[in-house]
Amino acid sequence: MSTTSTINIGSTMNTLKGACIIGQSGGPTAVINASALGAIRTALDTDCVTKVYGAAHGIRGVLDGKLYDMGEEDPAQLELLRYTPSSALGSCRYKMKDPDIDATDYQRILEIFKKYDVRYFFYNGGNDSMDTCNKISKFMQGSGYECRVMGIPKTVDNDLFGTDHCPGYGSAAKYIATTCMEASQDARVYDVPMITILEIMGRHAGWLAAASALAVEAGHGPDLIYLPEVAFDMDAFVRDVKAIHDRNGKVIVAASEGIHDQNGRFISEAATSATDGFGHAQLGGLAARLADIVKGATGAKVRGIELSLLQRCAAHCASATDIEESYRAGEAAVRFAAEGLTDKMVGFKRVMDNGAYRCDIELLDLEKVANTEKKVPRAWINEEGNGILQPYLEYARPLIQGETALPFKNGLPQFARLKKVMV
Amino acid sequence: MSTTSTINIGSTMNTLKGACIIGQSGGPTAVINASALGAIRTALDTDCVTKVYGAAHGIRGVLDGKLYDMGEEDPAQLELLRYTPSSALGSCRYKMKDPDIDATDYQRILEIFKKYDVRYFFYNGGNDSMDTCNKISKFMQGSGYECRVMGIPKTVDNDLFGTDHCPGYGSAAKYIATTCMEASQDARVYDVPMITILEIMGRHAGWLAAASALAVEAGHGPDLIYLPEVAFDMDAFVRDVKAIHDRNGKVIVAASEGIHDQNGRFISEAATSATDGFGHAQLGGLAARLADIVKGATGAKVRGIELSLLQRCAAHCASATDIEESYRAGEAAVRFAAEGLTDKMVGFKRVMDNGAYRCDIELLDLEKVANTEKKVPRAWINEEGNGILQPYLEYARPLIQGETALPFKNGLPQFARLKKVMV
Repeated sequence: MSTTSTINIGSTMNTLKGACIIGQSGGPTAVINASALGAIRTALDTDCVTKVYGAAHGIRGVLDGKLYDMGEEDPAQLELLRYTPSSALGSCRYKMKDPDIDATDYQRILEIFKKYDVRYFFYNGGNDSMDTCNKISKFMQGSGYECRVMGIPKTVDNDLFGTDHCPGYGSAAKYIATTCMEASQDARVYDVPMITILEIMGRHAGWLAAASALAVEAGHGPDLIYLPEVAFDMDAFVRDVKAIHDRNGKVIVAASEGIHDQNGRFISEAATSATDGFGHAQLGGLAARLADIVKGATGAKVRGIELSLLQRCAAHCASATDIEESYRAGEAAVRFAAEGLTDKMVGFKRVMDNGAYRCDIELLDLEKVANTEKKVPRAWINEEGNGILQPYLEYARPLIQGETALPFKNGLPQFARLKKVMV
Repeated sequence: MSTTSTINIGSTMNTLKGACIIGQSGGPTAVINASALGAIRTALDTDCVTKVYGAAHGIRGVLDGKLYDMGEEDPAQLELLRYTPSSALGSCRYKMKDPDIDATDYQRILEIFKKYDVRYFFYNGGNDSMDTCNKISKFMQGSGYECRVMGIPKTVDNDLFGTDHCPGYGSAAKYIATTCMEASQDARVYDVPMITILEIMGRHAGWLAAASALAVEAGHGPDLIYLPEVAFDMDAFVRDVKAIHDRNGKVIVAASEGIHDQNGRFISEAATSATDGFGHAQLGGLAARLADIVKGATGAKVRGIELSLLQRCAAHCASATDIEESYRAGEAAVRFAAEGLTDKMVGFKRVMDNGAYRCDIELLDLEKVANTEKKVPRAWINEEGNGILQPYLEYARPLIQGETALPFKNGLPQFARLKKVMV
């Protein structure tokens, strides 16, 4: 594991003996379990960690005292976590209160930590989870209970501040680009005009939809790409689609679910509003709505496709680079904590070494990463706001390299089956 | 290539020199190009075939005289057809008239055949395409123009009569099972009740939705599976979902888009009808509609997911068995035609050899396969009509074996790029 020179853990090792808890939180990804494995495996092999517990459904499991003894798991099944999508320990979307207003949850966590002699807490998640992690860290500091707290990033949305990219993004990007390539092949097959709208995840940041540009670069991608970073203009959109439709017959559009008008109103929100100014039937989602509008404008056959949660759980199409980096993120969290560090999130720093990509680990203050969103730079999107530029491709390309070594059995993936022995 | 002993091509070789046309028709699959490659490669290597033409957009290309010279293609790009989804030559959904009523199209085809000295015609498609193929074959026979006509099956729907299974089905089934496994992992991740509805292709036959049972067998699949082979009872459905919801919190449902009530009315059709008896908002598709109904019945969080055309074009998740068999189907069509056979469709015959699956080629009369649909046997579906039984699993398992050798470049699939040199 390469680490940046910016990490200085001090001249004396600070040994702290005790148990650790590893929790997973927020929306799952194809590789969040690779990070869990990195943390669990390393913790099991670290002398000062006396017990390795997995929290059932993240912080909820801690609050409820529902902990799994990870030392009881079959090592071969644990190893399968590297390739198993979704959060094997279970996830939650529990928002912790501000401890200054209501410290009940934190008192309860402290109680559990004391009961099980927990001295290490690793929390694997996105923005909200880093906020949770930060609050727990500060509370433990304030209460004088020695416990090292480390955040392990994860989010397909790639919107965490301070890290070059997030574990989970590379695999989602690879799946989206692959799927856009395949759908583009399919959508261009007939000798009749046809418009296809692909709806891609991302409420506030367009990183996922931008990945469709990798398909364009590979020669089989969408004609138009819309991200929430640029206010969406319905008239310009219809004009863009019509122009390509009139020229080529086939049009393929990729759009973030979070595109919105200049007043910040989601375009998909309008779809379920009774005051829909377009006079169209109410529809479920963005793709269906845009498809309906361009159908009216062109008369062409249209198809709306929502990639839905497949884009965050397609382990069979995960990026080997992402799997490896995710594992390293979990591993680094445990190693640095064992060496005395706390109150940090593991981050990635991109190093271009004679043109070759390398990903170094760096530690970021939890305080700084919590609740700050990173968006796609405006300069990476074309002026018209309907395409993605070269700097994004250079950014994203290294992250999707390599195919998963996910083992297959009887023609289907083999995913981990944990025993989940409750403590 | 193994062939059944039922094929007897006569004692004398019947050499016929001339050009051939290969056309692709109907909805594309992940492996239809593997069949095209099998036919093109074999035709290029067959002495009596003087020229190998590809029809642009199936029979439309023949009618319009739009033919590609396949001999002009780079062999390496041709080879990539084995792993390239969708119809590389273009497809169409053109329904030929009955020649007894209007023979214009047939006269035109004969004209083109004569012009280019076409003596072999290979048509790769599903039910409708086999009908086209059959009509052309009979017309050529009636007109006294010697031309050997062979159908090559293809359909993700797996509903072609007379063949054990169809090229394209195994890959779609593998993708659906894999995706159901991954989505099931994801849909069970939170500590709150959640109902997920997966909408799978299949208007009249439930072969594709049945593939979700392979995921159940692998340990991570839907709780309930509904096919069009059994009339759908909304009350029973809601009862089934509620029972599992009350027991487990999480419910995952897989349903064919073509499920219908006992009067044959599509459930999805009701979704866009003003007389919707359920009083719910109008929705786009079946998944959204069922999700809406169970949300009302349980109050749980729900999610509708339409696998959409990804299930028929996901070459990155194709079955190696399907790729190989599809190639062999194309190869066999050309070999048997060169040996004197005509007016047939290539079919697959399953042979279980000491428990081991083997797929033999057999030839079927075009007349018999055209326009006959094969459905999932009722005995393979449980009595309640909400689950799939062992015989289906035994049928489907061999078809999804093996992973594609699709080459990747820069982290993404490499698909064929044909020159398409027009004749």
